[in-house]
Amino acid sequence: MRYITALLACLVVSLGAKAPAQDALPSWNDGQAKQAILDFVDRTTTQGSPDFVPPAQRIATFDNDGCLWAEQPAYFQLIFAIDRVKQMAADHPEWEGQEPFKSAIAGDMEGLMATGKEGLAKILAASHTGMTTDEFADSVRQWLETARHPTTGKTYTQMVYKPMLELLDHLRDNGYKTFIVSGGGIDFLRVFAEEVYGIPPEQVVGTSVAVKYEVRDGVPVLIKQPQGLFVDDKEGKPAGIHQHIGRRPVFAAGNSDGDFQMLEYTTSPQSADDGPRLAMLVHHTDADREWAYDRDSHIGQLVRGLDEAEERGWVVVDMAQDWATIFP
Amino acid sequence: MRYITALLACLVVSLGAKAPAQDALPSWNDGQAKQAILDFVDRTTTQGSPDFVPPAQRIATFDNDGCLWAEQPAYFQLIFAIDRVKQMAADHPEWEGQEPFKSAIAGDMEGLMATGKEGLAKILAASHTGMTTDEFADSVRQWLETARHPTTGKTYTQMVYKPMLELLDHLRDNGYKTFIVSGGGIDFLRVFAEEVYGIPPEQVVGTSVAVKYEVRDGVPVLIKQPQGLFVDDKEGKPAGIHQHIGRRPVFAAGNSDGDFQMLEYTTSPQSADDGPRLAMLVHHTDADREWAYDRDSHIGQLVRGLDEAEERGWVVVDMAQDWATIFP
Repeated sequence: MRYITALLACLVVSLGAKAPAQDALPSWNDGQAKQAILDFVDRTTTQGSPDFVPPAQRIATFDNDGCLWAEQPAYFQLIFAIDRVKQMAADHPEWEGQEPFKSAIAGDMEGLMATGKEGLAKILAASHTGMTTDEFADSVRQWLETARHPTTGKTYTQMVYKPMLELLDHLRDNGYKTFIVSGGGIDFLRVFAEEVYGIPPEQVVGTSVAVKYEVRDGVPVLIKQPQGLFVDDKEGKPAGIHQHIGRRPVFAAGNSDGDFQMLEYTTSPQSADDGPRLAMLVHHTDADREWAYDRDSHIGQLVRGLDEAEERGWVVVDMAQDWATIFP
Repeated sequence: MRYITALLACLVVSLGAKAPAQDALPSWNDGQAKQAILDFVDRTTTQGSPDFVPPAQRIATFDNDGCLWAEQPAYFQLIFAIDRVKQMAADHPEWEGQEPFKSAIAGDMEGLMATGKEGLAKILAASHTGMTTDEFADSVRQWLETARHPTTGKTYTQMVYKPMLELLDHLRDNGYKTFIVSGGGIDFLRVFAEEVYGIPPEQVVGTSVAVKYEVRDGVPVLIKQPQGLFVDDKEGKPAGIHQHIGRRPVFAAGNSDGDFQMLEYTTSPQSADDGPRLAMLVHHTDADREWAYDRDSHIGQLVRGLDEAEERGWVVVDMAQDWATIFP
């Protein structure tokens, strides 16, 4: 009981402490986007505010590719898959001369893209299924340590957005529980999400395959299966949120039309007294410091989000204008 | 920053506070089971202990039926399903005279059981799919408020085990994150898990069906589908733990052979320095205050767990001996 009493006393002191006087988002330039975010967090976490949200309901969901880290010239996980297939090629003589493996091993991206969705699915299956979850995690860990981005030369985890790391921290400092809800693979993301974003594995939602439980020489393992694919993108995002989180987010951040339904699900009132919600889109407008793309992009395409953001009250973050710093 | 400083100060005070001098598990009789649990929590949360587990890794998973609440004379969720089918019958004239609905509506349990797994699946599908997740949750909420257990006359949420509520609290007071990992339905459990067990929806893992996202008159809804069934039982439990939690539990509690693989996954060393783990089985031995059943039971059958508990070092909780109180 002494422990509980001390903890309660602390909580009372903490909750009573004033909001930080200094800038919680130093990498964000002053402007409408930053102000809207700070105001929202303040309104939803101030006791007595009409927009106060009880701590248990403070769920914030973030897309990953193009929202927390970069996604050009291709999704980093696809680059991992190709690198992994190259590495595995020695053990797969049957891949020789056979597409899509031939192009992947040769590093011929055009040839690989020509194999279409079916080709990419084979590359993903070869690199992401048929092994234990631990073996897969090791292969991702090793890649993240050694691989370098083709144009910046940075490691991939150095290509996270500093303003978004600050936003994650600011939300958590104010009692929000932060989740990733990504079209990327759940087992891929979990390898680095805790260290890089401060998001533990149990708060990562992503594309997944079925896993099969087996005991091998007395040691239980989970084998990633080629079936049972759940695609956590577009309509899949609200579904993934329901299955993993079980309640509607209060805050959602994305950057492409793959996030449209997540933002729509988050912000469309379910009742007259639905409570405050905030959705934001990171708009890639900075060709000098990052990349500039939206409507016509082959990756991270953003059309409907831009068309409807204003009427839906979504905050559009202009990377060039709103972010003082991009990478850490 | 003042907020952070105050919070840090509190945490330091709280962490420094001594463990409670009084009994953390007052509904447990003194004995080996209680001592093993208290010792384990103490060892894994004491800084400097060779068995110290960092807070982020303190994952504890609990089965629900027969472990957190009773499961006789039938799984409560099955009773819900039958009650729900009776309620829905007026809108389904096509069910008249048709099994398994005929028996369900007549309350003829023998007739219903005679329809086998296929019949039960139809009852579950009718009561659990084809509606929005909110409609389903409402139907469960209404049932929990009004339905009464056939022999005790209590509401179903009064049939939770007080000793287990204390254990959940004790683990959380010591920095453990508590999860439900149940063969029961994830959407069914989430309706009461937070209020009754203090376990939020995002920490509930259970049997699930696919959900489909739709926008109806501008309002997003998720429709529970008759397909995409994931059965979170037996081999499904480690799979469900991986998909939802993404790391191996440190503590796991169950009561039947449906929990065997969860306990095996939790406690089988993956490496030489695997760290401490504890698994426990609630053994239903109290025909006076609850029910007594194990090897030959039609529900909650426990054979392999009893046979292997000793050699695996699992704690078997003898309900009659170890629990001073059963229901709150």
